[in-house]
Amino acid sequence: MASGVPSVKKKMEDPASEEGAISLPNPHLEKIKEDFLYHFALGTATHDFPALFGDVKFVCVGGSPSRMKNFISFIAEDLGIGSPSCDHPNICAGTDRYAMYKAGPVLSVSHGMGIPSIAIMLHELIKLLHYAKCSNVIMVRIGTSGGIGLEPGSVVITKQAVDATFKPQFEQMILGKPVIRSTVLDKGLAEELMECGKELNQFNTVTGNTMCTLDFYEGQARLDGAICSYSEEEKLEYLKSAYEAGVRNVEMESSVFAAMCSLSGLRGAVVCVTLLDRLEGDQIITPHEVLKEYQTRPQKLVGHLIKKHHGKQ
Amino acid sequence: MASGVPSVKKKMEDPASEEGAISLPNPHLEKIKEDFLYHFALGTATHDFPALFGDVKFVCVGGSPSRMKNFISFIAEDLGIGSPSCDHPNICAGTDRYAMYKAGPVLSVSHGMGIPSIAIMLHELIKLLHYAKCSNVIMVRIGTSGGIGLEPGSVVITKQAVDATFKPQFEQMILGKPVIRSTVLDKGLAEELMECGKELNQFNTVTGNTMCTLDFYEGQARLDGAICSYSEEEKLEYLKSAYEAGVRNVEMESSVFAAMCSLSGLRGAVVCVTLLDRLEGDQIITPHEVLKEYQTRPQKLVGHLIKKHHGKQ
Repeated sequence: MASGVPSVKKKMEDPASEEGAISLPNPHLEKIKEDFLYHFALGTATHDFPALFGDVKFVCVGGSPSRMKNFISFIAEDLGIGSPSCDHPNICAGTDRYAMYKAGPVLSVSHGMGIPSIAIMLHELIKLLHYAKCSNVIMVRIGTSGGIGLEPGSVVITKQAVDATFKPQFEQMILGKPVIRSTVLDKGLAEELMECGKELNQFNTVTGNTMCTLDFYEGQARLDGAICSYSEEEKLEYLKSAYEAGVRNVEMESSVFAAMCSLSGLRGAVVCVTLLDRLEGDQIITPHEVLKEYQTRPQKLVGHLIKKHHGKQ
Repeated sequence: MASGVPSVKKKMEDPASEEGAISLPNPHLEKIKEDFLYHFALGTATHDFPALFGDVKFVCVGGSPSRMKNFISFIAEDLGIGSPSCDHPNICAGTDRYAMYKAGPVLSVSHGMGIPSIAIMLHELIKLLHYAKCSNVIMVRIGTSGGIGLEPGSVVITKQAVDATFKPQFEQMILGKPVIRSTVLDKGLAEELMECGKELNQFNTVTGNTMCTLDFYEGQARLDGAICSYSEEEKLEYLKSAYEAGVRNVEMESSVFAAMCSLSGLRGAVVCVTLLDRLEGDQIITPHEVLKEYQTRPQKLVGHLIKKHHGKQ
């Protein structure tokens, strides 16, 4: 599959490369003296990246800034890092585009909603990890999604991120031309996460394909957007054909996440909770407190994984 | 051009429709008893939309929540609404997906970055305006962008929002199939805004096409992302061909904004300041204070327009 990045493989096989290092498939960066990560408000000229981030081994990303702040408090307590009351400052306080928190080897970053928003964040995050000389980093998206044929509150570990036609690919426009990239995720990591789900045994955990769309309403066959041109029957037909193609949940970031992790040699996984069953409806009307509990489930699952890995170090 | 919404025209020509009312091209909404706008944390069952928003005549949207908060303070002072020190609470305080502020007839809403993020917001915003029985609403996106062949700090009023191949269209995936929509903006409103620029005479204001991309790095031909497979020559060739096609700036939301305004009968405009000239570079390294001043320019221009309209009411 043509990725538009012919030099990656060569670079990844370079014997001089450090084991597990972040591969940056961009030869131009070698010529840049200083790099300013604009949407993080962090720069190599003003921040010591190896000192700030060199020990990072796990990066968890999710849409909502407050959820990612909650996650860092949760994981810090879980790993016994710092006091329970200790505050974790927003490392990207100089901007309101994204929020970033750190506790020991764990970095927690918000990415907003949709492929373009997470893609900007990932470009800058991957550069940050490279400049910080991080190695053997595991990257997990912990998010929310609409389920298909699953009880709400189920946690889906993504096998393949697929597009709106159920193909495991991501289309990146480059210089006005579409380039198709693979959305393969780390199989071993998905299996480890499934094992964590069994060990926790607190909620329904499944593996399945995740459909990644460019829109929440028409793009996900909802009937309750401001604009809708299809019938309820056509909607259900589409969602059922997604189910038949192995799709168990629908969200808006997994495909570019998978493509970019793969191109930079990062082990990546996507773990999303389902807030509703789309075969039953479109509106998210579950009580706020129940939704809040649902949203802690991917955190608990990934927390368990991190704890297991952290113990080994 | 097929928009995927065959019923819109019919609905807009319905003699029963109120003059200037928000047209919702979605017949399913009539069957919904209560509508919960999930990403605003506002619902028709819990909030009195006509009382809260019925007087809204101008909606300004922009990526950053803090910028949209600054805008509401600026416009409130400019229109002489409330005391200068009066605080404008975030109407969407129940969520951190978007922020929303109101001062008299002006609503200011953040939309995050990228087409999917602004599309979710617009679906819910257009429904909100409809439920509030608003009429004759003007909608303006005030944002930041990369310029092409313009001095940084220039304000571009969008003639046409074009895609990465310079076509004035937006592709919406519906039930797995692409539907092409027009990105025509309100010509009269753009002319009025240009007139405002001349009257203010404080900064360079131009009209031009705005290229709307799904990505900030590879999608905008930057050389400084984590991934890049093209040469500097290829980059410049692409940007120059964009310039030849009438493109004067590049951002990530205008096309779906134009398409959705048009489908719901809203007069829409896009006003963005350029933070750099992409023919000169990729990194935004202008000092923070200068960038801050640049970002007030679209606000000043649209503030001038609102003041002129508000005076007439």
